[in-house]
Amino acid sequence: MTIKAFVFDAYGTLYDVQSVAAATEAALPGYGSYITQVWRLKQLEYTWLRSLMRRYESFTTVTRESLGYTLRTLGLQPDAEVMEGLVEAYNHLSPYPEAREALEALKGYRLAILSNGSPDMLGALARNSGLDQHLEAVLSVDPKRVFKPDPRAYELVEESLGVKPGEVVFVSSNGFDVSGAASFGFKVARIERVTPATLTGELTGGGAIGPATMFKALRTQPEAFAYQAGYTIGSLLDLVTIAAADRRNG
Amino acid sequence: MTIKAFVFDAYGTLYDVQSVAAATEAALPGYGSYITQVWRLKQLEYTWLRSLMRRYESFTTVTRESLGYTLRTLGLQPDAEVMEGLVEAYNHLSPYPEAREALEALKGYRLAILSNGSPDMLGALARNSGLDQHLEAVLSVDPKRVFKPDPRAYELVEESLGVKPGEVVFVSSNGFDVSGAASFGFKVARIERVTPATLTGELTGGGAIGPATMFKALRTQPEAFAYQAGYTIGSLLDLVTIAAADRRNG
Repeated sequence: MTIKAFVFDAYGTLYDVQSVAAATEAALPGYGSYITQVWRLKQLEYTWLRSLMRRYESFTTVTRESLGYTLRTLGLQPDAEVMEGLVEAYNHLSPYPEAREALEALKGYRLAILSNGSPDMLGALARNSGLDQHLEAVLSVDPKRVFKPDPRAYELVEESLGVKPGEVVFVSSNGFDVSGAASFGFKVARIERVTPATLTGELTGGGAIGPATMFKALRTQPEAFAYQAGYTIGSLLDLVTIAAADRRNG
Repeated sequence: MTIKAFVFDAYGTLYDVQSVAAATEAALPGYGSYITQVWRLKQLEYTWLRSLMRRYESFTTVTRESLGYTLRTLGLQPDAEVMEGLVEAYNHLSPYPEAREALEALKGYRLAILSNGSPDMLGALARNSGLDQHLEAVLSVDPKRVFKPDPRAYELVEESLGVKPGEVVFVSSNGFDVSGAASFGFKVARIERVTPATLTGELTGGGAIGPATMFKALRTQPEAFAYQAGYTIGSLLDLVTIAAADRRNG
């Protein structure tokens, strides 16, 4: 038995970032999908760019900056009230339907989040969704002042939980995070939120390729790196099977 | 007089990355625009992710990986011959129409390229376009084993040309590169290849928002960081005006 902990990415893995679409559509009717996708695409770009430039600012700031960028592409001067309302939507993301049941079923393992989110955002998200009751720790990269996939971000797991990388199953839907975690040395389970067949169908079905399809094309598939997930799962509940196999083999 | 050198980004600044569209469309009719945009979007993502993961591979490798990723989203198993043909198109990008004249008009200044491109790609590009005759140096980030906007990449300019960051006008159309160079300490001229009015018109004109518009929305505007260009220009020829003003004030 080698698995001691399951550590989860938050955005896109336990929580559905697409659930801000209602708020963006209400704020700017007709542009909800566009704003949701470009905002999320730029939000992650900004974590990478700020890390590389050595100009770390919290995910709260990055989330605000990327939203401001997105609104300006539409020719809008970002209004402070609209901005804060939308940024607040990131504290009320919906958990994926099976998230709670999966965490309950994994009781007995060390369970934590490791996320780019700032401590205040993650605290609000875990509380608002009630998932905090099932998690030992909600770890933010913030004390490291660098974002994933910088290895220093992943080091927080061992430093905080006292488990070695090889004893951790890191769970993420985000290609960059899957590769970053695998490159770092975690066992990795990739939760496949969009199957290749679904994506290819959308791209080649003859319909227009809009912002939501572009998002799926850019960010939901495994990256073309050598660092890959050891497990690909269709539901977080499949982690229970991975745990059971590990106990049998251990 | 403080300006001693003009240093140019290559891809998107001196050379039009959109000029691979003919090759991608010929290889996969109907998907040229989609492939061109996703390939370029992922190509830069991969430079950032490999830098952050400390898993540097040359831009040649990154260009191949990002193309493979793009083709797989379409359900295609990348064929080696098709892949190499398309990667080779990056060695034959068209220079922007005014590039040569601008370099000629700046004669007397130290003139160089600083690019993510690998030495062999940049050498082929500069030779194939003839711009090599007007450049003192074609600098690749490759010896640093990290990509822009990591500050170590920009350090190559002083190390190679012996000019201090404040004596350099760094020229780029790429938002991340503009901010990276400004954060590093260069004077920065941003060449505006897509105006805000053009972009906003495409996004709000009522037409479908397709891959080419998404690319413009994601990668042609100034990033929402404090590190910005001191000059925004509509043509590389405007650099001559910047040089003349510097000589008058010096």
